[in-house]
Amino acid sequence: MSRFPLPPGSTLAILGGGQLGRMLSLAAARLGFDVLILAPEADSPAARVSAHHLRAAYDDAVALKALAQLCPVATFEFENVPAAVVQALEALGVAVAPGPSALAVAQDRVEEKTFLNACGAPTVAFVAVGDLADLRAGLDQLGAPALLKTRRDGYDGKGQTWVDSHADAEAAFARIGGRPAILEAPADFVRELSVIAARGRDGEVAAYPLAENHHKDGVLRRTRAPAKASPALIDQAQAIAARILTALDYVGVIGVELFELADGRLLVNEFAPRVHNSGHWTLDGCEVDQFEQHIRAVAGWPLGPVEPLAEVEMENLLGDEAEAWPRLAAERDARLWLYGKGEGRAGRKMGHVNRLRPLKG
Amino acid sequence: MSRFPLPPGSTLAILGGGQLGRMLSLAAARLGFDVLILAPEADSPAARVSAHHLRAAYDDAVALKALAQLCPVATFEFENVPAAVVQALEALGVAVAPGPSALAVAQDRVEEKTFLNACGAPTVAFVAVGDLADLRAGLDQLGAPALLKTRRDGYDGKGQTWVDSHADAEAAFARIGGRPAILEAPADFVRELSVIAARGRDGEVAAYPLAENHHKDGVLRRTRAPAKASPALIDQAQAIAARILTALDYVGVIGVELFELADGRLLVNEFAPRVHNSGHWTLDGCEVDQFEQHIRAVAGWPLGPVEPLAEVEMENLLGDEAEAWPRLAAERDARLWLYGKGEGRAGRKMGHVNRLRPLKG
Repeated sequence: MSRFPLPPGSTLAILGGGQLGRMLSLAAARLGFDVLILAPEADSPAARVSAHHLRAAYDDAVALKALAQLCPVATFEFENVPAAVVQALEALGVAVAPGPSALAVAQDRVEEKTFLNACGAPTVAFVAVGDLADLRAGLDQLGAPALLKTRRDGYDGKGQTWVDSHADAEAAFARIGGRPAILEAPADFVRELSVIAARGRDGEVAAYPLAENHHKDGVLRRTRAPAKASPALIDQAQAIAARILTALDYVGVIGVELFELADGRLLVNEFAPRVHNSGHWTLDGCEVDQFEQHIRAVAGWPLGPVEPLAEVEMENLLGDEAEAWPRLAAERDARLWLYGKGEGRAGRKMGHVNRLRPLKG
Repeated sequence: MSRFPLPPGSTLAILGGGQLGRMLSLAAARLGFDVLILAPEADSPAARVSAHHLRAAYDDAVALKALAQLCPVATFEFENVPAAVVQALEALGVAVAPGPSALAVAQDRVEEKTFLNACGAPTVAFVAVGDLADLRAGLDQLGAPALLKTRRDGYDGKGQTWVDSHADAEAAFARIGGRPAILEAPADFVRELSVIAARGRDGEVAAYPLAENHHKDGVLRRTRAPAKASPALIDQAQAIAARILTALDYVGVIGVELFELADGRLLVNEFAPRVHNSGHWTLDGCEVDQFEQHIRAVAGWPLGPVEPLAEVEMENLLGDEAEAWPRLAAERDARLWLYGKGEGRAGRKMGHVNRLRPLKG
């Protein structure tokens, strides 16, 4: 008999103890699931709302074995889960979703863009950079300025730098630690959008409305959803998401970051094989939010509706911005989410607020 | 400095480990609070989503002391918290909300109806019954049939019986164990309604729309909200709730059960000094649900909006009805809540489903 749909009362494993794990755990609880958090921290936002906490390194063989005894299914809140961990879990009989191919592609920016172009999801032009000679050749091909990023790791603008000219090449390569990299042509975009979509175990795909994102210093500050967009643009975005999900035989929620060009074309910036900060608006803007949607998909349940119930502006609360909670708690139609993190050090995501307005027409 | 409003990161204590405690804990987590559950069970729906679990009897002095060291505030999910426990907590410096007077009144049906009438909230006629002679005198005064209930304990129709005639008096008194009781005249009602309301630490009162309730065998089966009701009826219900809250100097959410008479008058059946099953519709029908509203009030935060966003029909899932989860999970616009209880023994509240429809103009 198939283990899916997973019955309520089952224990789901989540790798990672941050706010995404916390909100996934709260969603799982609504559906009657128990959650096990695997995270190395003594105390974490997710572990404090979950039935079980395995405090161990992600590659701790004993911990993975204990996880497998309790949990038929595992998912994660961050994309840098080592491939060896996923292999170990699968060898122990745990169904990991999203699966290893999604992780492998998402963990390497060259693999990711190669995959995206191959499945018909256009990106900026790019060149793989192994050494300084590659970087110089890449600058010849793409022109300057161009964006140099490490192939692996790096998020929220970390591990990347602009290369202004040939003269800057050596210094730029040093700035990212001389690591294997990708050089990207700049995207001459008019807006940054994202589409949060999900794919169930039966192949069903559902995409939430487009979101418009505003970043500062590489960090998401605000999302507006549903974004004002023509039906053609929405179709284009949803088709891109569906192509990626199907090509990866994906299970779960994905966040696809898009650039809208002046001519109306969309390029994929990158995708995150997990719930995504630009989908936090769904917590108060949709019947089934991205976190419950992910749990539904991973557990083999049918996907929920993705229609918007309200217009939402999501604002991230970074560092000491969360200290404004007394004002935000009193603000009419502002829904406050705080992540239970201790110290509000600069730039740390401490919470967010969803401001609601009735949907137009 | 006042301890209120309580800052996020504080730990709130909840007495009781059932589904109401679980949904309170999930709401507290959204606002960045940690929760400590005091409950004697080894494993409980609430403890499994909370940071801390004190497994002890409610009157365990050592446990109460440990609670007081972590939690500036305590609340509860059931009304039969012993008065001595509340006194002990307050002596340890813990602010208990709702307070001892609300508990004392709610725990004794004679005290409750006496209080209600005194504060201008009408009830059915009633007589206190200490012995069989009182019961016979009560039947003379109120007529038969009349409803005999134990003064204390009893819920969901337990601890009560109809007295059909004088001849039935002795047997009826035996049926409720010969305990101190209340004899109530029958309410000739056309509908059962309830109003869920909240009062903040600053005295602010907010009432959710009226709900229409359907019971079977003394147990709530379905709630429809907002109930169809004239503005006069709504005003009457909200005035009753406000009178009760103010007279008790109440802090938190209250559930007031009402009988609507044919002539449009409302009588109070009883009130619960806690979140209430007939308020579960607010989980998907309002921006701020009754659980978050209660946490806001208890923590000294401003109350949230109480306007409905949708029409909701809430259906309780009792016993093996929760086994229909695969169908309910696939039902469009049905929001499923499961409580994480192991065995679905007959009549046990295992979850509920909120079915949503757009609000009518």
